[in-house]
Amino acid sequence: MIQIASYQKQIEEAIKQSKYGSNPKELYEPIEYIMSLGGKRMRPVLVLMACDFFDGDVAKAIHPALAIEIFHNFTLVHDDIMDNAPLRRNQPTVHEKWNSNIAILSGDAMMVKAYQEICKVEQQLLPEVLSVFNDTALKVCEGQQMDMNFETLSKVSIPTYLKMIELKTAVLLGGALKIGALVGGARTEDAEQLYVFGKHIGIAFQLQDDILDVYADTEKFGKQKGGDIIANKKTYLMLKAMEMAESNRYMKEELQQWIAAPQFNPAEKVDAVTNIYNFLNVKELARNEMKKQYDIAIKALKTIPVSDDKKNMLTSFADSLMVREV
Amino acid sequence: MIQIASYQKQIEEAIKQSKYGSNPKELYEPIEYIMSLGGKRMRPVLVLMACDFFDGDVAKAIHPALAIEIFHNFTLVHDDIMDNAPLRRNQPTVHEKWNSNIAILSGDAMMVKAYQEICKVEQQLLPEVLSVFNDTALKVCEGQQMDMNFETLSKVSIPTYLKMIELKTAVLLGGALKIGALVGGARTEDAEQLYVFGKHIGIAFQLQDDILDVYADTEKFGKQKGGDIIANKKTYLMLKAMEMAESNRYMKEELQQWIAAPQFNPAEKVDAVTNIYNFLNVKELARNEMKKQYDIAIKALKTIPVSDDKKNMLTSFADSLMVREV
Repeated sequence: MIQIASYQKQIEEAIKQSKYGSNPKELYEPIEYIMSLGGKRMRPVLVLMACDFFDGDVAKAIHPALAIEIFHNFTLVHDDIMDNAPLRRNQPTVHEKWNSNIAILSGDAMMVKAYQEICKVEQQLLPEVLSVFNDTALKVCEGQQMDMNFETLSKVSIPTYLKMIELKTAVLLGGALKIGALVGGARTEDAEQLYVFGKHIGIAFQLQDDILDVYADTEKFGKQKGGDIIANKKTYLMLKAMEMAESNRYMKEELQQWIAAPQFNPAEKVDAVTNIYNFLNVKELARNEMKKQYDIAIKALKTIPVSDDKKNMLTSFADSLMVREV
Repeated sequence: MIQIASYQKQIEEAIKQSKYGSNPKELYEPIEYIMSLGGKRMRPVLVLMACDFFDGDVAKAIHPALAIEIFHNFTLVHDDIMDNAPLRRNQPTVHEKWNSNIAILSGDAMMVKAYQEICKVEQQLLPEVLSVFNDTALKVCEGQQMDMNFETLSKVSIPTYLKMIELKTAVLLGGALKIGALVGGARTEDAEQLYVFGKHIGIAFQLQDDILDVYADTEKFGKQKGGDIIANKKTYLMLKAMEMAESNRYMKEELQQWIAAPQFNPAEKVDAVTNIYNFLNVKELARNEMKKQYDIAIKALKTIPVSDDKKNMLTSFADSLMVREV
């Protein structure tokens, strides 16, 4: 994992040295701000790792890695407006610190900035890399729209939910890996397998997040326990519970009551819904789905004709994302 | 002008045949909607004209022309949210017909769609065309932010105003022409001169719009007369009047009173401010600036080694934009 820390450092350094623009400052200061808030830089690290995976020159992957990170942060800025979120990484969101109009517009400018970074790849790679980037970006928009639609739907099937997290979260991990692979000189079919690996790791990662919201050791996880339950968020656990409660009238009514309750004691609601989850065993089902997705990812990785040493770096990175006890 | 009508028809046809996507429909229906609202399609027509100007294959310019039109419509969708505008081309704006979140997100998707169309240009042209597109897109964002900033500034200089309309409106005409020129096989320096032509025609066009808001024959212009005055919009006329009134205490006070009035009779305000404009002769000054910009545009066009016949088509198109009596 020393290698990963070194990649993170390279990314942080590149972000620190990035000049987005200066005038008008209301457009560019929010970009500097959101980009400086940190985070694990998981997506750009994946670009560098994928490049290295194919023995490519990692220096050439820095710009597309920045593109992926700028794009990811653009989605955070716009999503936070849509979700009316006050905080991002424990700091005020852009629309809170400035205003919604500035958040819309500086987000738009970030999208262009992301494309400017992508355009720095070697000319012969540009069409294919852009095609992956465009395709990924559009899917992320589709996923966010699906997620917004879920808020007003009374019923969402598990396959539809999996599709949503695939689009909203997972394809960007796949896209980051595929772009890094292409820059690293991978054949298209191998880059595609790395995309599949990233996509399914991404789905598994989101499922883990759903589980951790309810079952994590709060101290270690650092988020409010049961936040998704309080917000009636349609997670895998909630949707699976709703689906299973269909055949159990008592469970169904209790779940519906908690979902519909206009006022409630948050801790009481979290406890009650967690009890329903426990009774219906949805945590186990979510873990099974998570493991299934993880296995698909590993299977795709195995098809790529690259040394096991190289593969181990990717699997241990994936494992490091998944280790938080579930 | 028959040629221009034929280009408009080609653009309309291409838009009609465009499939943006279908699922989720909340993401794609607003794109279909805004793209179908029509308009003169001036910007994509400029792409085709510029391609033809250099004897290029106009069929190859259709995709970048669509990119420019999709990008332009994306800016309308997001600007309308920021301006809280209820109508666009006499139809409900996207955020009114759906909601702001959908308008933000479908706008984002349009930006990606615009890049997808740009990416259809021939591979060897892609880096240069993308560079123009990125540069133009970023400038449009900067111009919109400057325009928003003007709302809360008590004073804006004429050069700053001209810079704002250059960025917000004019560079997209320049960018459209430059991209069309590159697709048409122009040398970079000739494409650049066409950019300069488009940019200055764009500035002149916006100045004309400022003048027409106050002095147009309402019947022909089809907009509410004095809308900019009623909204205290910082147009060239208003800013010039504010600047000139500095040395005339009576004028200054009257103008300030109308600007600060919390309640007023709209027709009375329009009349009073128009009288101040007339007294200070700002219409003539705006026309002079407009003509100056037009002359710079024509001068740039003249440097390009292309037949006068070809040039006449561009100048008569420019004239057709400028003829509305001022």
